[in-house]
Amino acid sequence: MSELKKVKPALSKGTRDFLPVEVAKRNYIFEIIKSVFRKYGFEEIETPAIERMETLTGKYGDEGDKLLFKILNSGDFLKDVPKEDLAAANSPAALKHIAEKGLRYDLTVPLARYVVQHQDSLAFPFRRFHIGPVWRADRPQKGRYQEFYQCDADVIGSESLLNEVELTMIYAEVFKRLGVDVIIRFNHRKVIEALIAVINKPEFAEVIISCIDKIDKAPWEKIEVELHEAGLTKAETDAIYSSIVSNADNLWMDDGIKTNPSGEVAFNELSTFLKAINNSIPNLAYDGRLVRGLNYYTGVIWEVVLDKNSSANSNITMGSLGGGGRYDNLTEMFGAKNMSGVGISFGIERIYDVMEELNLFPPTISQGVQVLFVPREKEMEAFAFQQAQILRNKGIGAEVFLGNVKKQKQFKYLEDKKIAYVVEVGDNEQTSEKFRLRNTQTRDTQDGLSIQDIVAIMLQ
Amino acid sequence: MSELKKVKPALSKGTRDFLPVEVAKRNYIFEIIKSVFRKYGFEEIETPAIERMETLTGKYGDEGDKLLFKILNSGDFLKDVPKEDLAAANSPAALKHIAEKGLRYDLTVPLARYVVQHQDSLAFPFRRFHIGPVWRADRPQKGRYQEFYQCDADVIGSESLLNEVELTMIYAEVFKRLGVDVIIRFNHRKVIEALIAVINKPEFAEVIISCIDKIDKAPWEKIEVELHEAGLTKAETDAIYSSIVSNADNLWMDDGIKTNPSGEVAFNELSTFLKAINNSIPNLAYDGRLVRGLNYYTGVIWEVVLDKNSSANSNITMGSLGGGGRYDNLTEMFGAKNMSGVGISFGIERIYDVMEELNLFPPTISQGVQVLFVPREKEMEAFAFQQAQILRNKGIGAEVFLGNVKKQKQFKYLEDKKIAYVVEVGDNEQTSEKFRLRNTQTRDTQDGLSIQDIVAIMLQ
Repeated sequence: MSELKKVKPALSKGTRDFLPVEVAKRNYIFEIIKSVFRKYGFEEIETPAIERMETLTGKYGDEGDKLLFKILNSGDFLKDVPKEDLAAANSPAALKHIAEKGLRYDLTVPLARYVVQHQDSLAFPFRRFHIGPVWRADRPQKGRYQEFYQCDADVIGSESLLNEVELTMIYAEVFKRLGVDVIIRFNHRKVIEALIAVINKPEFAEVIISCIDKIDKAPWEKIEVELHEAGLTKAETDAIYSSIVSNADNLWMDDGIKTNPSGEVAFNELSTFLKAINNSIPNLAYDGRLVRGLNYYTGVIWEVVLDKNSSANSNITMGSLGGGGRYDNLTEMFGAKNMSGVGISFGIERIYDVMEELNLFPPTISQGVQVLFVPREKEMEAFAFQQAQILRNKGIGAEVFLGNVKKQKQFKYLEDKKIAYVVEVGDNEQTSEKFRLRNTQTRDTQDGLSIQDIVAIMLQ
Repeated sequence: MSELKKVKPALSKGTRDFLPVEVAKRNYIFEIIKSVFRKYGFEEIETPAIERMETLTGKYGDEGDKLLFKILNSGDFLKDVPKEDLAAANSPAALKHIAEKGLRYDLTVPLARYVVQHQDSLAFPFRRFHIGPVWRADRPQKGRYQEFYQCDADVIGSESLLNEVELTMIYAEVFKRLGVDVIIRFNHRKVIEALIAVINKPEFAEVIISCIDKIDKAPWEKIEVELHEAGLTKAETDAIYSSIVSNADNLWMDDGIKTNPSGEVAFNELSTFLKAINNSIPNLAYDGRLVRGLNYYTGVIWEVVLDKNSSANSNITMGSLGGGGRYDNLTEMFGAKNMSGVGISFGIERIYDVMEELNLFPPTISQGVQVLFVPREKEMEAFAFQQAQILRNKGIGAEVFLGNVKKQKQFKYLEDKKIAYVVEVGDNEQTSEKFRLRNTQTRDTQDGLSIQDIVAIMLQ
């Protein structure tokens, strides 16, 4: 490699390296989530980063298609592009000849493909979780990356509302164990359907849904203008306001919605859902304004947000930390008969940022080995190594400092790697086989210990 | 999504989905390796899948450059390609204008970039491990994928040979815990350097190294012909034969090599290495034929192979399960002063295949929750759910079967998810709150248990 051109070490924009302490903190979050998923019978799966463009295209709207990362075909990638498209530098026309593969954009479309492709090998209802990176060619900005993790749990092939109950319980338990005070907001997509039916404007469904979705972010006056400009009358926007906005935390809805067939389904399902939860989740709250995007969901929906009434959260602003819902048409896109599904996701990257900001990671999180042996001179390295090996053979994490013997470097090493105990090894120790054990936190020392004494202390 | 074009569910070639049982088995291997790495003070890092082409290009030879997956620039990707290159459909010339990013090809070049980029934040000697996917546009075949995992541990910034000793210990402990009988072969690259110096043919270094590298795969007669054709004399090939091939397991080398300055370094380092190991690794074996490729390594090198003398392995053929060595110029390519490094890697995919073939995964590996509650009718679902919740609140994994009530489906579910106990919930159970607990393996049952009895049994 000696003739290599030297390049500046730099990341591709919108991507990140993780330092050891960051990986430890991320793993802490993952492990809590995984253990709760497993307790509820969810199993982990994995799908490849690379999918066929055919699998990815058309699933995320035109904007999503643009944000897909496409992988250049291997070899002579221009050879199948029609001459006239090359001459015109027509990128859109050339695309399908130049890139057959792309990077996954989420974990949901791969799940749909997976369930259809492996349906004969899976146990249904299929309860799976999947944690892994996805890629989007979004403009990077603070908190938004081109490569980031998603974390999803879904149940495929069961219509029972107890799945919704379980997923709500999972949300509650995970955030409790992480120490993040949240509100779990929920609604039912058929409440919105009923509202549209009641005001009898099905042709305005999209704009109504999109406007309700914005209620959190803009004043009602502004949204009302948008609805009027789209063509709704004052009476109709008033109906939306009284049903959804002014009444957002009233689950029992106004009678118009409740007596509409869709509203009745929503009402009955939400009643069943709440009965099974039986007030066991204090931070669960109905929110009639909750929509979760234009398409896709058909039943109960969730969104998890920071509890602004919690004093811990008073100085922090953050978008939703999770969301999900029931959907009826996941597998249709891959030609299979429809299987009802319901799922939740955790916004891992935001949860990390919140926990970092609120200092919620346990201080021991990136603790390294238990004991560091520091040879005073190079000549004591082999003896120090033998001592470390005695600990390791008992299952105790141990290291020998094999670097620069400057004291300052050794202290930095101890501190950076959060090692609990240190033992210096010099001539005296090598001769007497007695050691001084120093606790790096309390600075307490114990003298005259044999290596077996140290083993015993570590195994206490 | 209703207007979606239906597509056949299919993987991109050379990629894989993993079923839950496969993920569980892979995690079993990862967890053993990680726990040993951690015991020796190695910390986990992560780097992005996407790297700049500048970072990747030129590091893996011309052949490697061809195997890099390149990511098409976003938007109008043809706009910066010179007109004449488009007109000529000149893919190689167009490449640099069309793709600025690629997928990482291994974990080593990203490590070099990472160490240089973050050197002020890292504790040196930097002991890191990294487990993650890499991508190569190789022709897929049995056991060779375009997306596959690598698993590396390296120490950067320490020249002590005790690092080599520790890495050898890690190899020995991991394979012992996995239950795979292996031989850990080792050599020193300076043995080969000395050989080339002794026959005084530095201009033949590449062909000699490449030929020695093939000794395992081809008969010596054939390799000798290749060396003669390259221009070596019979006396020279005889010297190679007597030093390296006939004498391959004799660490103490012939005097010619040992008295050469490079040979002397190798001899001294290997002596120090073996003294510190002190015969504690019975399956460690010197192999003078070991080379590990053309470039890169400069000191001790390893390769882990199945022990063909182990009866367990008698019916299985598999390439190396791991390899590594010391290198001196990792960080130079990113313009930093050289830091010596030494590392090993585990061939995760092959280890998996071997363990599968030899049936080495524990039968409990993909065990799901402890107890499955099966409601006899839909009406008992909510009651069954309450019972499951009591178990979960005690930290016990539990599920309610919320699918199709056909007995056959329920049995398949129990079996597929390897659930240890099953409790049916019908009218009687709902009324009496007494249950029959059935062990799905032994088929033993216990009758008349309260849910608290079941909790107690599970916590035993």
